[in-house]
Amino acid sequence: MRTAVYIGDHTIETAEAEPQPPAAGQVQVAVAYTGLCGTDLHIIHGSMDGRVSRPLAFGHEMSGTIAAVGEGVTDWSVGDAVTVMPLVWDGTCPACLAGNTHICQNLVFVGIDSPGSLQELWTVPTDLLVRLPAGLSLKHAALAEPVAVAVHDVRRSELVAGDKVVVIGGGPIGVLIATVARHAGADVAVIELEPGRRSQIEGLGFATIDPRQDDQVQWVEQWTGGAGADVVFEVSGAAQAVLGATALAKVRGTLVVVAIHPVPREIDLQRLFWRELRILGARVYQRTDFETAVQLLDEGVIPADELISRVVPLDGIPAAVDDLENGRALKVLVDVGADE
Amino acid sequence: MRTAVYIGDHTIETAEAEPQPPAAGQVQVAVAYTGLCGTDLHIIHGSMDGRVSRPLAFGHEMSGTIAAVGEGVTDWSVGDAVTVMPLVWDGTCPACLAGNTHICQNLVFVGIDSPGSLQELWTVPTDLLVRLPAGLSLKHAALAEPVAVAVHDVRRSELVAGDKVVVIGGGPIGVLIATVARHAGADVAVIELEPGRRSQIEGLGFATIDPRQDDQVQWVEQWTGGAGADVVFEVSGAAQAVLGATALAKVRGTLVVVAIHPVPREIDLQRLFWRELRILGARVYQRTDFETAVQLLDEGVIPADELISRVVPLDGIPAAVDDLENGRALKVLVDVGADE
Repeated sequence: MRTAVYIGDHTIETAEAEPQPPAAGQVQVAVAYTGLCGTDLHIIHGSMDGRVSRPLAFGHEMSGTIAAVGEGVTDWSVGDAVTVMPLVWDGTCPACLAGNTHICQNLVFVGIDSPGSLQELWTVPTDLLVRLPAGLSLKHAALAEPVAVAVHDVRRSELVAGDKVVVIGGGPIGVLIATVARHAGADVAVIELEPGRRSQIEGLGFATIDPRQDDQVQWVEQWTGGAGADVVFEVSGAAQAVLGATALAKVRGTLVVVAIHPVPREIDLQRLFWRELRILGARVYQRTDFETAVQLLDEGVIPADELISRVVPLDGIPAAVDDLENGRALKVLVDVGADE
Repeated sequence: MRTAVYIGDHTIETAEAEPQPPAAGQVQVAVAYTGLCGTDLHIIHGSMDGRVSRPLAFGHEMSGTIAAVGEGVTDWSVGDAVTVMPLVWDGTCPACLAGNTHICQNLVFVGIDSPGSLQELWTVPTDLLVRLPAGLSLKHAALAEPVAVAVHDVRRSELVAGDKVVVIGGGPIGVLIATVARHAGADVAVIELEPGRRSQIEGLGFATIDPRQDDQVQWVEQWTGGAGADVVFEVSGAAQAVLGATALAKVRGTLVVVAIHPVPREIDLQRLFWRELRILGARVYQRTDFETAVQLLDEGVIPADELISRVVPLDGIPAAVDDLENGRALKVLVDVGADE
């Protein structure tokens, strides 16, 4: 079978590999599509070399159908359409024992810490599988993982219908959070620097703020009748965004930090104190989030076609990475079985 | 009557003033004791000159007895022992309308934004009064305000019995938070740089950590069986403490920021994200916190005698300020009626 692997030094190669037959409690999935995400770009850039072994068939946003089942597997059959929730926890650490298995202190993230879905036949334990409904296209289903992130972030924020919500950063995750928040009844505005992204986001029906043109604090004040936003999602990863984020929230408002900030960031703790704000970290998802994500995709709530800029073959990844990094694509899917 | 006033330029003077007779809905309180706190030191140092009018009779931690009642006041009588919750809200801003009157967007903090309790006869609206029980000494009762801060901080943290709690900073508020948290059933350790304070805190039965000697992260890891602390209170105001605080908390743990940080501080958002931490600002108190504070003082839960380093007369304030700033006193009360 064919795979795409990161071999180090900014390099992705396609390779031939022997498929791993499913052991007891496992299934072998014929991967249809794998989405490329920001973490994959970090892997390719070598910034996660300390964590990933090489060669690594990465990829963790996917859809596919079951090709073979291992011994004792009764709940799943060949041909079932599935996606994979790529988390493996130890079940014994203090976080797991407290019920937070999704952020296990020794979490294995499949596709980063172990082989992922950029292989034609991918063998995984059945407890990672999430069933796809009959009518859902495998292209749309490949977005289940990033949608699950957004569902988790929105759930963690505890926003309620009628809330005013600001999303800082209009990349794929920002747009998904905006979409899920709106579906929960919130009124959403997205702060985004890039004009092309802003018009795309406006096309999806969201208000946008250009922080270089608008005074974002004044904009939000006016929009909220002087109160401030109920919830602010920081999805940009930018130091300046974090520093300004607290000024957007109402008294007792919530700031959810979704983006990865590899170095410490300055935060206005005076504002945190003055308004008794709440800052929450939000990472990955729980099974309920994944199941909700599949449901939202199935119901057509997620603008999947607008988000998927293009579908490329397995050996089209290097060019797709270049497009993603230069703003020429929002979300790219890899058609894992296809060839250029 | 005599008052102590901040006249600007680091200077406190005693002065004579005409007592203000209580209007309708007001009482005149004969102030017994006024505690000096960190905010008072900020006032004296001129760092709040943009906010305070001068001359200002400051002071907001107090106890006293009612000397006269205004027209229509029926719930209070001359001789009643009282303390004052020094907050006046507008009742109309979005924060008030959402029920957060204690952090009203236009809050008047009495003793900072309006005259305080460093005057022999202090006239205040009755809705600021909190009744003192018969057996509670007026000296101990003068601690009600800082105890209410601690009660509010602990309540905001949502800690439960059995939690492991770390308090960063062993000044008066830190010790009060530790005391209130322990009373709520938590197991408490206090991080404090100053050896003298550490031994006093140990004398009160708390574990202490010297961050210059101990590896505080390792200490807390060991103490919590590898989990991390349930709740961390940042009471030090130090940049380094904030940067290190997130490493002490467990997965889904809480960091409560109690100290004032006048400039933005670096926070490890990677850790916030990784462990889905929660950071909460906590400011002043609500009436329930004040009432609980009085009750805890009455029940002898608060080590009031250990906290009150000395009682000085009205004209002893400059020397007391010097003692407080040079670590020679933890809490100083001013006997407002007394003279040197």
